[in-house]
Amino acid sequence: MKPGTLIGVGLGPGDPDLLTVRSARLIAQAAVVAYPTLPGTDSFARRIASGFISEGTQEIVIEIPITRERAPAQAAYDLGAARIADILALGQDVVVLCEGDPFFYGSFMYLHARLADRFDTEVVPGITSVAAAAARARTPLTARNEVLATVPAPLPDDAIRRRIDIADSLAILKLGNHLGRVRALLNNLGLSDRAIYIERATLDDEIVLPLVDAPDPAPYFSMILVTKGADPWLKPPSSSR
Amino acid sequence: MKPGTLIGVGLGPGDPDLLTVRSARLIAQAAVVAYPTLPGTDSFARRIASGFISEGTQEIVIEIPITRERAPAQAAYDLGAARIADILALGQDVVVLCEGDPFFYGSFMYLHARLADRFDTEVVPGITSVAAAAARARTPLTARNEVLATVPAPLPDDAIRRRIDIADSLAILKLGNHLGRVRALLNNLGLSDRAIYIERATLDDEIVLPLVDAPDPAPYFSMILVTKGADPWLKPPSSSR
Repeated sequence: MKPGTLIGVGLGPGDPDLLTVRSARLIAQAAVVAYPTLPGTDSFARRIASGFISEGTQEIVIEIPITRERAPAQAAYDLGAARIADILALGQDVVVLCEGDPFFYGSFMYLHARLADRFDTEVVPGITSVAAAAARARTPLTARNEVLATVPAPLPDDAIRRRIDIADSLAILKLGNHLGRVRALLNNLGLSDRAIYIERATLDDEIVLPLVDAPDPAPYFSMILVTKGADPWLKPPSSSR
Repeated sequence: MKPGTLIGVGLGPGDPDLLTVRSARLIAQAAVVAYPTLPGTDSFARRIASGFISEGTQEIVIEIPITRERAPAQAAYDLGAARIADILALGQDVVVLCEGDPFFYGSFMYLHARLADRFDTEVVPGITSVAAAAARARTPLTARNEVLATVPAPLPDDAIRRRIDIADSLAILKLGNHLGRVRALLNNLGLSDRAIYIERATLDDEIVLPLVDAPDPAPYFSMILVTKGADPWLKPPSSSR
C-alpha cells in the first residue's frame, strides 16, 4: 500500500480569513488532522482552523510540556511523530495544523525532522506574524536593497544590538518579559520613535501602539517592528488608520 | 460622499492556491483593481490573480519604466496614485494586486505612501517568497531563538558577509547576475553545502537545486536559502522530496 503524505499547513497569524485557499481546502478534505497544544490550554492552531475542519475528521492532539530542559518536549514530538507514522503507514494522509508558517519558528519542524525521511511530505506556507503585523501597523518592511532581520527578544542585549546595527528593518519577536529591556535598548539607540508595538495581530483583541505606550510585560504573541526608513520615496504618511 | 478604501492585497509567490481566503474574496468582489506592469511584459500580479477577477471589473494598469534613475518610476507611481485617488474620491474602493506580500519588497508601498494620509487603507498580507521557497525546499528557516536575515544579492560582498556572520538563516534574494558572486562568497565561508537554490517557487517551472548546481546568471525571481542548522533536534532528513 502506498503510504500517506505528511502535510504541514500554515494557518497564518490568527484571523481565519488569512489561511491560504490551499490550506483551507486541505483541512476541509482531511480525514485526519494533528496539532500541538500546551498543557491546560486550548490549541491556538485548532482554534484558527476550527471553521474549516469537517465533521467526523479524526483529531490527533500532541501535548507539548513546557520545561526548562528540552528533552520532555522532544519526547512528546517523538510520541506524536510515532502516532502520525502509524496513520501514514496505513495509506492515510495527515494534515498538521501550524500557526503562522510551518518553517518560521513552528513546531511542525520537529515532526518533519522525524518523518520526512520515510514519508512523502507537502508543506503549505502560511502568512507569518511579521507580514501580518506590518500590514496591520501600515508599516512597509523592506524596499529595494534593504535588509530585514527577525530577532527573538530573549537573546542578550549585545546580540540584539548587533542585529539592529546591520538591518534596515527589524521584527523583534517573543517579547513577553523582555519588552522593557528591548525598549530600553531601542531608546539608547535613538530608534524608539521608529518602533511600533503589535500584539495579537489580526485577532479581535489586536493592539497596535507606539512602542512608548506598550504594556510591560507583553504577551508572547507580540512584536516590535523597527524601520529605519532610509528610502526618501517612502516617507511614512502622517496617519493611516 | 464617503471616499473609498485603498486595499493592497498580497497574492503570494505565484501559485493562485496560495492567495489567502481574504485576498481571493476581495479581488472577486472588486469593481476596480489596479496593478503594476513592466514595459512590454504581462503583469505577473495580474496573472496570479486572473482566476479570481470577475467579469466587468475595471482594471487600472500602472506601467513602471525600468531606468537607472529613480525619478521616472516615481513619476509613474505619482500618476498611478492620482488615477487611484480619483476613483477613491468617488466613493469606490480600489484593490491593488501585489505579488508576494505588499510590504515586503513590494511596489504597493509607493502607492500607499502617496495615498494613506488621505484615504482609509487596508493591507492584506501575502505569502512571502521566502516562506514559499522554504516550504518547497523542505528547509526549516528558524527555530527557538534563531535569527533570520533577508538580504538582497545586489549588495556588495562585504555587506552580504556581515549579514551572514550574524544570522542563523539567510534568504539571499534578487540573484540575477549576482549569483556567481554570492556563490563564491558562500564557498569561501564554507557554507555552500548548507545552501539551496530555489527559482520561481510554486510555479509550474519551479526549480530547487543544491547551490552548486544553480544556473548562472539566475533569473530575478530566485533566491538562495542558507541555514546554519544549529538545533541538534532539527537534523535535516536525508531525502524529503
